[in-house]
Amino acid sequence: MVKINIEEAKQRIIDIFAKVGMSREEAAIMAQMLVEADQRGVNSHGILSTVRYVRLIQEGKMRPNMEKKVIRDNGVVAVWDGNRSSGQMLGYRGMEEAMAKARKNGVGIVCIKGTNHFGALAFYSQMAQKEGMIGITFGTGDSTMAPFGGCEKVIGNNPVAVAAPADKQVSPVLDMAMTVVANGKLSNMKRQGIEEIPEGWGLDRDGLPTTKMSEYYSVPAMAGYKGWGMAVMVDILAGILFGGGTGDKAKDTQEGPSLFLMALDIEAFNDKEKYYHDIDERISELKSSKPAKNNKGGILMPGEIEDGRFKASEKSGLVDVLPENLKMVNDLAAEMGLEQIAVQS
Amino acid sequence: MVKINIEEAKQRIIDIFAKVGMSREEAAIMAQMLVEADQRGVNSHGILSTVRYVRLIQEGKMRPNMEKKVIRDNGVVAVWDGNRSSGQMLGYRGMEEAMAKARKNGVGIVCIKGTNHFGALAFYSQMAQKEGMIGITFGTGDSTMAPFGGCEKVIGNNPVAVAAPADKQVSPVLDMAMTVVANGKLSNMKRQGIEEIPEGWGLDRDGLPTTKMSEYYSVPAMAGYKGWGMAVMVDILAGILFGGGTGDKAKDTQEGPSLFLMALDIEAFNDKEKYYHDIDERISELKSSKPAKNNKGGILMPGEIEDGRFKASEKSGLVDVLPENLKMVNDLAAEMGLEQIAVQS
Repeated sequence: MVKINIEEAKQRIIDIFAKVGMSREEAAIMAQMLVEADQRGVNSHGILSTVRYVRLIQEGKMRPNMEKKVIRDNGVVAVWDGNRSSGQMLGYRGMEEAMAKARKNGVGIVCIKGTNHFGALAFYSQMAQKEGMIGITFGTGDSTMAPFGGCEKVIGNNPVAVAAPADKQVSPVLDMAMTVVANGKLSNMKRQGIEEIPEGWGLDRDGLPTTKMSEYYSVPAMAGYKGWGMAVMVDILAGILFGGGTGDKAKDTQEGPSLFLMALDIEAFNDKEKYYHDIDERISELKSSKPAKNNKGGILMPGEIEDGRFKASEKSGLVDVLPENLKMVNDLAAEMGLEQIAVQS
Repeated sequence: MVKINIEEAKQRIIDIFAKVGMSREEAAIMAQMLVEADQRGVNSHGILSTVRYVRLIQEGKMRPNMEKKVIRDNGVVAVWDGNRSSGQMLGYRGMEEAMAKARKNGVGIVCIKGTNHFGALAFYSQMAQKEGMIGITFGTGDSTMAPFGGCEKVIGNNPVAVAAPADKQVSPVLDMAMTVVANGKLSNMKRQGIEEIPEGWGLDRDGLPTTKMSEYYSVPAMAGYKGWGMAVMVDILAGILFGGGTGDKAKDTQEGPSLFLMALDIEAFNDKEKYYHDIDERISELKSSKPAKNNKGGILMPGEIEDGRFKASEKSGLVDVLPENLKMVNDLAAEMGLEQIAVQS
């Protein structure tokens, strides 16, 4: 890992996106989302995506500025066509709209088809969390997973993110894909020349379990038929329900993936004071329960590790990024004749 | 398994509930839910629960007739106090109300605290499914599971059920708890004298994995930190959000468990024809993908096995129940001086 300055990184990314025609306002939101992912330690969805998005824009596969079409809107539920704009901008604006609807009705839902790569879903759910709401986000992905009992990659890893606000305790955030482990993790191991993979992480082309990297073809669903069942339900909720892309149709070059964004305004459900008291108390109760004999780190809530990394990064003004990711962004900046991001240590 | 007549079983259960003061209207709804669970093969939540509910009513822990108090209702979101009425009647009426709200607004949510044992969540989500809606139900349970990395039972297995309608294909239904396997399954194995349990199913009192029944204390969360994270989020959504009971507070004798019921009306999201075309096509695509080499049964969608059992049962007019469950119900009928359910074969 190398450290870079948060504000400098954002400025450089804004400059890069501006160079391919993105408004500085959108570029600033994008830069915020990407750097924040690295600050939370989610390097796969951090500054590295700058390169991917610039290429998509250059290839005409992603609009540099968001243009959405409202297909339906009854004041509580809306369906948008994202017109292959940035998935991250659509997720951002979609959750803003879901929150506006939730403020009026207690709940607001925005479904978006025709998106593009949408990064880490946690960000959208956390937008609601920061406004005293619960955020729930589902997304479809292109075919990377085999069905339970199958061997063909026909369904995405269909992530789910839920974030709820706490007061004194760390606000819980769950952001998970339906696979046992991220595909990217195994691809990284492959690049590193690792030949053996942990039991349960890989299936071969016949859909049989394997621990040999040379035989590995797909990652199974987490928890067997349960993860498979959840992937199917995300396909329906974040896709089929409103005509969004699923499986092969979610591939960037076709219809694109789709998003389901929901905000629940706590004030419609409870007295705010009682809610914050109760959630802090419940988190404290769970965290103070006895750790297993082999666990020296204590009980961790979902998102607690990422929150710790984020707060440390905010305090120092610096963020850890993978050197190879930084190099790719800086190479792009150099190609564009723009200033590069300096390594701080 | 023994076979009993569906209509006869319902009549006998109605008579039993009526004997402890339940209106025949409510008793008929209860009997429908219980027999349907057995018809789907979910014997743990079938006719056996008749005995449990009668005892709760006799002990004054469950109202024989539902009395709910509306705490909040803004037309889209409602919060009820179930006053320790039947969890199953509250779930039934709650989903009816969520669907009425969804018909007007596209989405409807009913949250209920102070419930009681609520049986199989699939039923409530399927109520929406049968009306051309997507049903989503979460429930809190009393402490049966240890946190990821913990050893104390401090959180429920917090089930989730999602059901979506299809046209020509079988409508998918996902109903799952957050544990690797049901506690009841291990209790049954214990009663049968089985000494070895499958790897990954059990934790001992120190929170360490065990395959010895004599050391088994709790069932771990499915998929490790993912299942734990989901259990936390269900605790929040189906409990903390609106003041419902979680963990120890969800125990029948205290505040009771709580429910989150949501209906999404497909017509607010899509043209109905397009939705039904797309979901049938997607299910067909997934089901026709190649099975793994060791899988002779083909790709199964969530709820497909249960649906097959249910349809066969409806066709024959008979339902398979566990002989020991039937005996308990018939012993209760005998105790009350009521007619027993006859075995058909």
